[in-house]
Amino acid sequence: MRTHPLAAACLSLSALLLLANAARGETDKHPLDYQNQSAWKGVLDQAQSPIDIVTGHAQPALDNEPREIVLRHLDVSGTAEDNGHAVQFNTHATDATIRGRFFRMTQFHMHAPSEHTIDGRHFPLEGHFVFKAQDGRLAVIGVMYEEGAANRGIQEILDDLPTATAKPRTATLDVHSMLPGHLGYRHYLGSLTTPPLTQNVEWYVLKQPVSLSHEQLTVLRQHYKQNNRAIQPLHGRSVIEFGG
Amino acid sequence: MRTHPLAAACLSLSALLLLANAARGETDKHPLDYQNQSAWKGVLDQAQSPIDIVTGHAQPALDNEPREIVLRHLDVSGTAEDNGHAVQFNTHATDATIRGRFFRMTQFHMHAPSEHTIDGRHFPLEGHFVFKAQDGRLAVIGVMYEEGAANRGIQEILDDLPTATAKPRTATLDVHSMLPGHLGYRHYLGSLTTPPLTQNVEWYVLKQPVSLSHEQLTVLRQHYKQNNRAIQPLHGRSVIEFGG
Repeated sequence: MRTHPLAAACLSLSALLLLANAARGETDKHPLDYQNQSAWKGVLDQAQSPIDIVTGHAQPALDNEPREIVLRHLDVSGTAEDNGHAVQFNTHATDATIRGRFFRMTQFHMHAPSEHTIDGRHFPLEGHFVFKAQDGRLAVIGVMYEEGAANRGIQEILDDLPTATAKPRTATLDVHSMLPGHLGYRHYLGSLTTPPLTQNVEWYVLKQPVSLSHEQLTVLRQHYKQNNRAIQPLHGRSVIEFGG
Repeated sequence: MRTHPLAAACLSLSALLLLANAARGETDKHPLDYQNQSAWKGVLDQAQSPIDIVTGHAQPALDNEPREIVLRHLDVSGTAEDNGHAVQFNTHATDATIRGRFFRMTQFHMHAPSEHTIDGRHFPLEGHFVFKAQDGRLAVIGVMYEEGAANRGIQEILDDLPTATAKPRTATLDVHSMLPGHLGYRHYLGSLTTPPLTQNVEWYVLKQPVSLSHEQLTVLRQHYKQNNRAIQPLHGRSVIEFGG
């Protein structure tokens, strides 16, 4: 593949760099074998979710692009269901502009206890509001719930959850009551938290928690006492924060 | 894990849905075992690059978000090098707003023949201009080169490529001459085309090709006669087009 003297010199340079990089513990740079691509190894475990969000390590979002989350159409109709691993509400009525780009809601569902932790602390419940862009990108807005006043939206879901009927029922829901007053967030790039664990997810974990009652939490736990994935290593990813 | 009669009923519902989904050939929905998460399998091969871009299947970009690519600071200084698998130019001077979000250039490099194909056709050379966002997202602008008039920027890189010196030399470069007059693109979500094959890349393959001379192509091929990854399956991903 390399016959020209210039190329040979460059190859030697690469070998030198490889040694230097190895000495510094960096990724190796050895030449790739394009004749044997089936032997190339991909890596799936470098950007997984959930993570522990260390609030003191989050860096402020730069103002060179839009930073807000704007949600529209929060009075929605859809179907509540138990999807086999979480209580879920399916709707496409809500859409969002997130950091300047457009997403449409596909569903939201609940994890107990929370999947993300904030400075090592779990919340009793975490809601995942899942959005999809035209190109297939996913953005998930994570909302932390804590015990307190009853939550109207969660109650509507619990009331509408199909029990003995095989077909999910159409229900209307006020998503607004399931969100905090401010949409300030901590953002990072991660993955789905259930297989296939796809690393194509923009995560926005909202800073302000929302309340639900002890009784509501008890009913949700009767569905899934524990459906949170274990905390995954950060592997040097940036966590970016914006708003309150 | 599930003891309440309601939960048992929902589990039965899930089992019914599983059978129904299996009958329709959909993804299974069987309950996840949260007590045995180490057995969960991730999937890495569903959104890989490069792909064959079938122009007739591309869908127009919706106008609910910004669609343009805006590049800034195209007169750059940086270092040309042979990185072991491609001729590369490292610079952080150029930045971009791509579909409303901000990215900074990290490097660009060349593949021969092209990695992407357009309606099954390879170009002799493809440039990958690699950009990174604050959160670590990657965007790569792919430029197709065809034989014709000599290319000033490519010549500057070839002139500056280190030969017998161990350290890449700082060079200045007019990136503008390596880009087409219009930045219309075909966009999809994919991966790096070399290991670790990370699926965190917004691809923008520009529609208009740019020329380089037969002699320039010959010199580049003396470095890498063939450094293109094989075409990967689309797996239902959307390809979105914008501009001319």
